[in-house]
Amino acid sequence: MPESAPIIEAALSQRFGERLKVDGCLPGLDELARIAEHRVHRRYLSREIAPDLLRLLCACALSAPSKSDLQQGDILIIRENAKRYAIAELLPEMPWLRQAPAFLVFLANGRRLPQISQIRGKPFPNDHLDLFFNATVDAAIVMTTFLRAAEAVGLGCCPISVIRDHAVKVSEMLALPPKVMPVAGMCVGWPAEEGGITPRLPLSVTVHEDHFAERRLTEMIDAYDRRRNTTRPYRNQREPERFGRSEVYGWSEDKARQYAVRLRADFGSFVRSKDFNLD
Amino acid sequence: MPESAPIIEAALSQRFGERLKVDGCLPGLDELARIAEHRVHRRYLSREIAPDLLRLLCACALSAPSKSDLQQGDILIIRENAKRYAIAELLPEMPWLRQAPAFLVFLANGRRLPQISQIRGKPFPNDHLDLFFNATVDAAIVMTTFLRAAEAVGLGCCPISVIRDHAVKVSEMLALPPKVMPVAGMCVGWPAEEGGITPRLPLSVTVHEDHFAERRLTEMIDAYDRRRNTTRPYRNQREPERFGRSEVYGWSEDKARQYAVRLRADFGSFVRSKDFNLD
Repeated sequence: MPESAPIIEAALSQRFGERLKVDGCLPGLDELARIAEHRVHRRYLSREIAPDLLRLLCACALSAPSKSDLQQGDILIIRENAKRYAIAELLPEMPWLRQAPAFLVFLANGRRLPQISQIRGKPFPNDHLDLFFNATVDAAIVMTTFLRAAEAVGLGCCPISVIRDHAVKVSEMLALPPKVMPVAGMCVGWPAEEGGITPRLPLSVTVHEDHFAERRLTEMIDAYDRRRNTTRPYRNQREPERFGRSEVYGWSEDKARQYAVRLRADFGSFVRSKDFNLD
Repeated sequence: MPESAPIIEAALSQRFGERLKVDGCLPGLDELARIAEHRVHRRYLSREIAPDLLRLLCACALSAPSKSDLQQGDILIIRENAKRYAIAELLPEMPWLRQAPAFLVFLANGRRLPQISQIRGKPFPNDHLDLFFNATVDAAIVMTTFLRAAEAVGLGCCPISVIRDHAVKVSEMLALPPKVMPVAGMCVGWPAEEGGITPRLPLSVTVHEDHFAERRLTEMIDAYDRRRNTTRPYRNQREPERFGRSEVYGWSEDKARQYAVRLRADFGSFVRSKDFNLD
């Protein structure tokens, strides 16, 4: 597809504020274009997603690589509206959770491996941080691959990591057994609007060559804030009653304010209550 | 691409032992086919990867969604052979690490967010498990998206999570500062062989509908072991001197043996030494 190269260049220019050269002869440029143009979608057409298609996308997602072939990422498809609405009630600021044609939860399953050890009559002396870490990473890999598969066929997605703000309740609602925990939810549907490209930190901040580098971080972040505000300015400032009104309000000010309050401080105790050992 | 549907059906049939219906009219089927056909690649042509292409793939990878837009996944491109060979020496069982045209490390960066809070003069009362978790998941999302972008243009990859078997040394070699840690490495190159499709647990084990279910797990795993052995039998049994020789040696026996010894038991202390708080 010869027209993909300029689409990629434009998307990445908007994303990173940098002109990257794209060789128009590369195969798979239409796929690169979809990756480069990734947009979050929170508004959906009322059109359903056929159960067969959802299952196909799950199968594609689970075709992703898995740490040591352990396959510790699972998918929970929430079909019952009562269950989904109960979760949506915890997150009233996210009405798309109720409206999306499909809602999935990606699970870190640290349970199956010790079960297999037991089935095969072997000891399992590995109930420590590694188990939690591997299952979490596997779930994230499955989730990301699901997103890619969904976007390939034209669906739009919105990951809902915020379900972890209510990890205990969500886990109870979903009746998740010990050593199984939600990493993130995901709304899926046919997009009702185009959506926008979120500018990202410049590659000089996030791509390191040979040495981890954070030279001129403040300057880079200031420039990013400014660039981002040209296309995606913040409409509201967080907690002006606490922090006042900033003349320049960009990404860094917004994130600093967001994390100036304690968030998910109970996440560790939740994870331990799910019988994960974090030692 | 009308020919993609049967490719997807064949790949997923081999992967999951199940015939999934693919609607040949869907857009993006060529991308779904690449996802469904994912193969690990450990042997590469001597052909280089142009630095511009690697940078383009990194930019695509970093276009992926990020938890709360915090952008906590970084990429370290290892160009210096001395650095890469030092890591390869820790992993002599993986000669492809030395041979691959490119080697990257995906980093969980839990450092930038508190830095931003400091730059903006805000408190950061969120130095707990959530920070580690979010940075880890972001790094996994970036890694997975890199893999998709690389496979799109015809490259083959081999994730190297085993660098965490030597987390302290690798972290020192790469001079990673506090709150920055490697999630996984990745070898990248132009494939020298086709590679194979790794069969996966049946979808009835890993895809749950409304309820987390693990009915008939032993039976399912037995059947998976048998199915897998028809195309990917294990050539060697692990530690026969300890466990004897199994008549039937499948995935579950192999994984149970692999995890019957303590692995990465020092991972938690490594993560804490990197100044991550896991409370």
